[in-house]
Amino acid sequence: MTQQDDSFLSDWAVHSRFGAVEGTNGVERQAASEADGQQRKWFARLLESHGFRVERDAIGNQFGLLELVPGAPYVLTGSHMDSQPTAGRFDGAYGVMASAHACFRVADELRADPSRARFNLAVVNWFNEEGSRFKPSMMGSSVFTGKMPLMDALATRDPRGVTVKEALDAIDERGGAVFGDGGPEVASYAEIHVQQGRSMEQDGVTIGLVNATWGAHKFEFRITGEQAHSGSTLMEDRRDALLGAARLIVAARELVDEFEPGMLHTACGEINVYPNSPVVVVSEVQLLFDLRSPSREVLDAAYARVMETVERVRREDRVEIEVVAEHSWSQNPYPEAGVELAREIAEELDLAHDRVMTVAGHDSTNMKDRVPAVMLFVPSVDGISHNLKEFTRDEDLVAGVDHLTGVVRRLAEGALVD
Amino acid sequence: MTQQDDSFLSDWAVHSRFGAVEGTNGVERQAASEADGQQRKWFARLLESHGFRVERDAIGNQFGLLELVPGAPYVLTGSHMDSQPTAGRFDGAYGVMASAHACFRVADELRADPSRARFNLAVVNWFNEEGSRFKPSMMGSSVFTGKMPLMDALATRDPRGVTVKEALDAIDERGGAVFGDGGPEVASYAEIHVQQGRSMEQDGVTIGLVNATWGAHKFEFRITGEQAHSGSTLMEDRRDALLGAARLIVAARELVDEFEPGMLHTACGEINVYPNSPVVVVSEVQLLFDLRSPSREVLDAAYARVMETVERVRREDRVEIEVVAEHSWSQNPYPEAGVELAREIAEELDLAHDRVMTVAGHDSTNMKDRVPAVMLFVPSVDGISHNLKEFTRDEDLVAGVDHLTGVVRRLAEGALVD
Repeated sequence: MTQQDDSFLSDWAVHSRFGAVEGTNGVERQAASEADGQQRKWFARLLESHGFRVERDAIGNQFGLLELVPGAPYVLTGSHMDSQPTAGRFDGAYGVMASAHACFRVADELRADPSRARFNLAVVNWFNEEGSRFKPSMMGSSVFTGKMPLMDALATRDPRGVTVKEALDAIDERGGAVFGDGGPEVASYAEIHVQQGRSMEQDGVTIGLVNATWGAHKFEFRITGEQAHSGSTLMEDRRDALLGAARLIVAARELVDEFEPGMLHTACGEINVYPNSPVVVVSEVQLLFDLRSPSREVLDAAYARVMETVERVRREDRVEIEVVAEHSWSQNPYPEAGVELAREIAEELDLAHDRVMTVAGHDSTNMKDRVPAVMLFVPSVDGISHNLKEFTRDEDLVAGVDHLTGVVRRLAEGALVD
Repeated sequence: MTQQDDSFLSDWAVHSRFGAVEGTNGVERQAASEADGQQRKWFARLLESHGFRVERDAIGNQFGLLELVPGAPYVLTGSHMDSQPTAGRFDGAYGVMASAHACFRVADELRADPSRARFNLAVVNWFNEEGSRFKPSMMGSSVFTGKMPLMDALATRDPRGVTVKEALDAIDERGGAVFGDGGPEVASYAEIHVQQGRSMEQDGVTIGLVNATWGAHKFEFRITGEQAHSGSTLMEDRRDALLGAARLIVAARELVDEFEPGMLHTACGEINVYPNSPVVVVSEVQLLFDLRSPSREVLDAAYARVMETVERVRREDRVEIEVVAEHSWSQNPYPEAGVELAREIAEELDLAHDRVMTVAGHDSTNMKDRVPAVMLFVPSVDGISHNLKEFTRDEDLVAGVDHLTGVVRRLAEGALVD
């Protein structure tokens, strides 16, 4: 390990203490929680100690800015430090810490040779990428890229009724305009993340060159039945919303087996039930239901089968099923020029690399639609994700920082920008 | 309608305002809620205005006591005023109000002719029969009859962490010893309730002579899987606790069709899910799962089938399934002497009557194991229960009060007691 590696691993070790779940290697650091606030304060001091100016925008995205070329746009690099409830310490946070250290290294180089700098450097810790406390996910980057109105995001409530605005104010992390609105502009974007799958580990790949996001179709269903005494009411008189939901959950899993192995992922991760009382037939369920596939054809066929199931459950179990919300996207490519730049750097550094698709969304999914972007993965042991046991080896962590440093260096010199 | 009927219906109308759900005929008045507290204060004043002394015991059972025969035991009659979240206004509350008016009438008769009284009169509003806020149900009568330790009941917490003790103190309804412990004794017990089924309405029966409770086997399952990213994790790597729970919920419903129609009721009314986040595979589910039947044979066969399903789900979906708690009882008869007394009175009053079983539990289920007891039903339109739309016609309400008055009169004169 080099001194630079040690410096990264040392900061990384400190970072993982915020929101640490006792007796595990994981964290609980949901968006705008106390732990999130404490970590942001620590991260601000770290950035400042390397000469970066820290600012927050109106949706709580935290930026570290270093102006090397007065008035020039910025190369932006980062990810998110918020976590799912009890999750690994790598998801998102690794990307933010790797970005900070990549920028520290490139900043030192460019300070030594200012003529090489075409753009300035900025690190970002996006607000609420996970979407577990406040929906939807990728909130900070969605507002930043104009895909979600700021006012809507600030008014979003967590399950206890606290708004994003209140939660950000409680940790003193709501700011004003940083980029745009007459402020500086972003020239290009880079992000690194642990793979949330096990293909890279299996194939011996150290750097994943992310070239596309899987397509998806996500539903929020509302299933409505009727409250009744769950002991005495005749079975044929019941309209049980939980039974309807259970049929959909089982159907989601069974649907997978109708397609080629690996071509369809389905999930129901969230269910809310009313009145949820021991002796009352459930009258209302809200259920999230996801389909994901790299293939548009598979998604469309799966969608049609879901609708058949919905019709059958409606008819046979006499419950109402509404699609309260749905959104869908096809396989979504990352720009080829960014994939090629990342490949070149992996070859220069002699790091095993391959193109990989991401099934999960990332903040780069938003950013790549606005500016030239590069998305990178490092491997994750057994692909364990959204779990306290998530783990990536130190050698992969430091290889990723090295690679990202190469990407940021090239972007700061003007790569990907005409 | 007689003047006595009007008096009952007038108090009944006032009573239904406590915890009324706007725009409906129903209520939300869970145990030891603010609405429960306000109603108890009002009910205490009503009892006092008829010369009854009001006391609460250590688990918050509210009693109205009238001593006619110094030192003699009491005929106790009542039910519960707490409700499920958003429920009808009749369930339990009708029984308390009918008991109060039955006692008011018998008290007037016995004051006019004291020689007829062998026992004193007491009305009871049992604490937390529903069990929706604090588990288990029938808590007040379970503590009263020594089936549940007082300390355990007081330490029980609602989903927000509030204990029964704290909740009772917040509405100032925790008292001390009333019956037993050197205080007065209970000679016999009577309860009236709306039927939570539609057989009486169908058969044109006004007074149900409850002769048995269905048997039941109730499970609390804990299903354990593993957190994972619900998008990117390979389907074959997942251990999805919500999928396991959904398979049990569907199996519960399908099990019913393996038995004679009407012989098995099954239900899953409560499910708690962790972490319940949009993109995380669920790692833990707590699920309540009930079997009910009038037949021990059917219950046993259904139990065996449930265990087969548990084994299959464990194996095929690779989740752990533990039975965290279970309790079971066979068909449980009410004492025949009480059924016969109720039949005689229905004939005297020329009220259509029949023997019925109860599927639901009632506080009388506890009391009948301690003292001679009578349990009565009046019909409920369409059998709708645990639902804001629950409804019983005025003529059935007043017929029930008349009948219960006859029962209380006979019990006060010494019926059912050697």
